[in-house]
Amino acid sequence: MLGHTPENSPFLAACRRRPHDRVPVWFMRQAGRSLPEYRAIRGTGSILQAVRDPALATEITLQPVRRYGVDAAILYSDIVVPVAAVGFGVDVRPGVGPVAEQPFRDADDLDRLPPFDPDVHVPYVQETVRLLTAELPVPLIGFAGAPFTVASYLVEGGPSRTYTRTKALMLGDPELFAALLGRLADYAIASLRAQVAAGASAVQLFDSWAGALHPAHYTRHVLPHSQRVFAALDDLGVPKIHFGVTTGELLPLLRDAGADVVGVDWRVPLDAARTRVGDGHALQGNLDPAVCLAGWDAVAAEATDVLRRNGGHPGHVFNLGHGVLPETDPDVLARLVDLVHTWSDTTDER
Amino acid sequence: MLGHTPENSPFLAACRRRPHDRVPVWFMRQAGRSLPEYRAIRGTGSILQAVRDPALATEITLQPVRRYGVDAAILYSDIVVPVAAVGFGVDVRPGVGPVAEQPFRDADDLDRLPPFDPDVHVPYVQETVRLLTAELPVPLIGFAGAPFTVASYLVEGGPSRTYTRTKALMLGDPELFAALLGRLADYAIASLRAQVAAGASAVQLFDSWAGALHPAHYTRHVLPHSQRVFAALDDLGVPKIHFGVTTGELLPLLRDAGADVVGVDWRVPLDAARTRVGDGHALQGNLDPAVCLAGWDAVAAEATDVLRRNGGHPGHVFNLGHGVLPETDPDVLARLVDLVHTWSDTTDER
Repeated sequence: MLGHTPENSPFLAACRRRPHDRVPVWFMRQAGRSLPEYRAIRGTGSILQAVRDPALATEITLQPVRRYGVDAAILYSDIVVPVAAVGFGVDVRPGVGPVAEQPFRDADDLDRLPPFDPDVHVPYVQETVRLLTAELPVPLIGFAGAPFTVASYLVEGGPSRTYTRTKALMLGDPELFAALLGRLADYAIASLRAQVAAGASAVQLFDSWAGALHPAHYTRHVLPHSQRVFAALDDLGVPKIHFGVTTGELLPLLRDAGADVVGVDWRVPLDAARTRVGDGHALQGNLDPAVCLAGWDAVAAEATDVLRRNGGHPGHVFNLGHGVLPETDPDVLARLVDLVHTWSDTTDER
Repeated sequence: MLGHTPENSPFLAACRRRPHDRVPVWFMRQAGRSLPEYRAIRGTGSILQAVRDPALATEITLQPVRRYGVDAAILYSDIVVPVAAVGFGVDVRPGVGPVAEQPFRDADDLDRLPPFDPDVHVPYVQETVRLLTAELPVPLIGFAGAPFTVASYLVEGGPSRTYTRTKALMLGDPELFAALLGRLADYAIASLRAQVAAGASAVQLFDSWAGALHPAHYTRHVLPHSQRVFAALDDLGVPKIHFGVTTGELLPLLRDAGADVVGVDWRVPLDAARTRVGDGHALQGNLDPAVCLAGWDAVAAEATDVLRRNGGHPGHVFNLGHGVLPETDPDVLARLVDLVHTWSDTTDER
C-alpha cells in the first residue's frame, strides 16, 4: 500500500479506469476551515491574498495530505482568481463567497474581461504549483471555474439561490451571454494549461452551479463553452474531472463536455450515476458531506454504501458529493480515508 | 371557456386526469411580494400576523385570482403556522424565512410540540377558508408543510443550504428524528383536514427541501411520515399534490407517498418526469421561475416547451417549478396565464 508516487498513483489510475490496488480518495475543500492547522496560519482576509503567497498556499495545500493521507492534493486557490487578477473587481468575502461590486450588466462590461495571461496576471499560482510538485508524494489537481459558474458570480454580484439575473441574461441576450462565457472559457483554458505546465497531474473544472439549469438550457447555452475548455486540454494528457451539484439530469451532458471523470453529488446513488454516464468514464464521489457530522457509525455505513454501489468498477475516485463542511471533525475524515483504503469487495463480504 | 366553478374546474379535472377544456394554471407564491396590490395592504411584520387576520388573508388570497385569472387559489398562509401556533417559538422574518430562536436539539424539545388542534390553535385559518370558499370562483388549495421540511427549520433554526444538523439528527439519532417527524405529520394531518372541512377543494403538501436527501435516506427516514399524512386524507376525496425542488431522483417516491399530483421543478423536463412517475398520476409544473424575468419571447418559448413536453396528457397542471420570484412583473404572469389557456396541441401545430 505504501510507496505511491504520482507515477503509480491509484488516483490517476482510477481516473483512467486502469487497475490499481486500493480505492483512491480525496476531499473537495480538504484544505481549509475544518483544519485547525489551517486556521492557525491562515489569518483573516480574502483567500485571494493568501493565494498570492506561494509559501502559504503551498503549506495549506500540503496540510490535508499530511493529516489524512489522501491520494491527491488540490491546489489551494479559488475559481475567481483569474477574473480577479485581470481587474474585473471581484473579491472573496469570508463567510459569503465571491462578490463583484459592479456586476456584469451589458456589453461594455466585456471590456473588464481582457485577455488573461497566467504568467503576467497570476505568476504566484504557477510558483505554488512548482513548489508543490517538488514536494508532494501524491498527484496535484489543478482547477478552474467553468464558464457558467464563474459567470453566475459576475452577473449576480455574489452567491445566489436562484441565478435569476444569470438566467435572464442567458435567455434574454444569448449573444452577450455567449460572449461572456467565451471569455471565461479562455480564462479556464489558459489557467489550466499553465497549472499543468507547472506540474499539475490532473485538472478539475468546477461547474458547481450548472445544476440550476434545465438540461435544454445547459445544452444550448453552456455545454459548447465547457466542451471548448476540455478540448483545449486534450493534448496535455492529464485526467480531466468535471463537477457540479444537483446535476442528476446533466450527468450525461457533463460527460459529453469532454471529461474523463464525472463528479456526482450525493443526490444520485452512484450505481444510478453509472447507468447514466456509462462504463466508459470514471466517477468521483459521492458521500453527502453532512453525513460526516452524524457520528462515525453513520459515516462508516454511508461510505460503505457508496463503495458497494460502485461495485468494484476501477473508475471510481472516492470523494464527498460537495466540499467538506467547515464544522467537520478532521478525525472523522482521517478515519474515512482509512476505511476507503482498507475496503475491498472481499472484506465487505466477510 | 367561461363559467368555470369549483364543480367543473379544469384544475380539479387535471388533478384527476379527467378530460377538460383547457390546461389549468396557477402559480406557487402567486399571492405575495410580486403584486403591488399586495404590498399596498400587507404592511410590514411577519406573515404570521397577517395570517391571523381572516379579512386580510382572504383579500391577499383573492388578489392573484382577480388579476391573473388563474384556475386555483392557494390559501395565504405559511408552513410553520401550526408549529408557531402551538408555541414552539418560531417566526417568519421578512427576507429571511422561518427562524426558530431555540432550535430543536434533543428529546426535551418534543415537549415544545404538544398536540395541535386547529380549532383551538388556528381558528383564524379555518375562518379565512370559509370566507374564501364563499367568494372564490375557482377551487381553493389548502396546504401544509411536510414533516421533513418543517423539521429542517426547527432543527437548523432557519433556512439552510446544507441541512447539516437535520441530517446529523436523522442519521445519528433516528428514533428522535422519527418522533419529531411523527409530531409534525400529526400537525399536517390535522391542519389539512381542518382546511378541507372548512371548504378547501384540494391540498398541497410542501416538502420543498426533501430533494436535499439521498433517495435511500428519504425512503428510510421521511417517506413513512409523508405516507401517513396522505393516507389520513384519503377519505376526504380531494386531490392531493406533493411538491419539492431538486427532486429528480425522488419523483417516484413522492408519488409513492400517496399524492395524486406530483410537483416537478424545472430541472427535470416534463416528459422525463412523466416517464419516472408513470401515466397513473398527474404532474404539476414546471417552468423555471427565473424565465419570467427574461423577457416575453423567452417566457413564451419556454412555456410552450413545457406544454409540448406534456404531450396532451390530461394530467397536467401548469405551474412554475418553484415559487414566483419577488422581482417578477405581474403583467408577464397575466400573459402567461393567457398563453396556457389558449394553447392547444392544434394551435401549436399551425
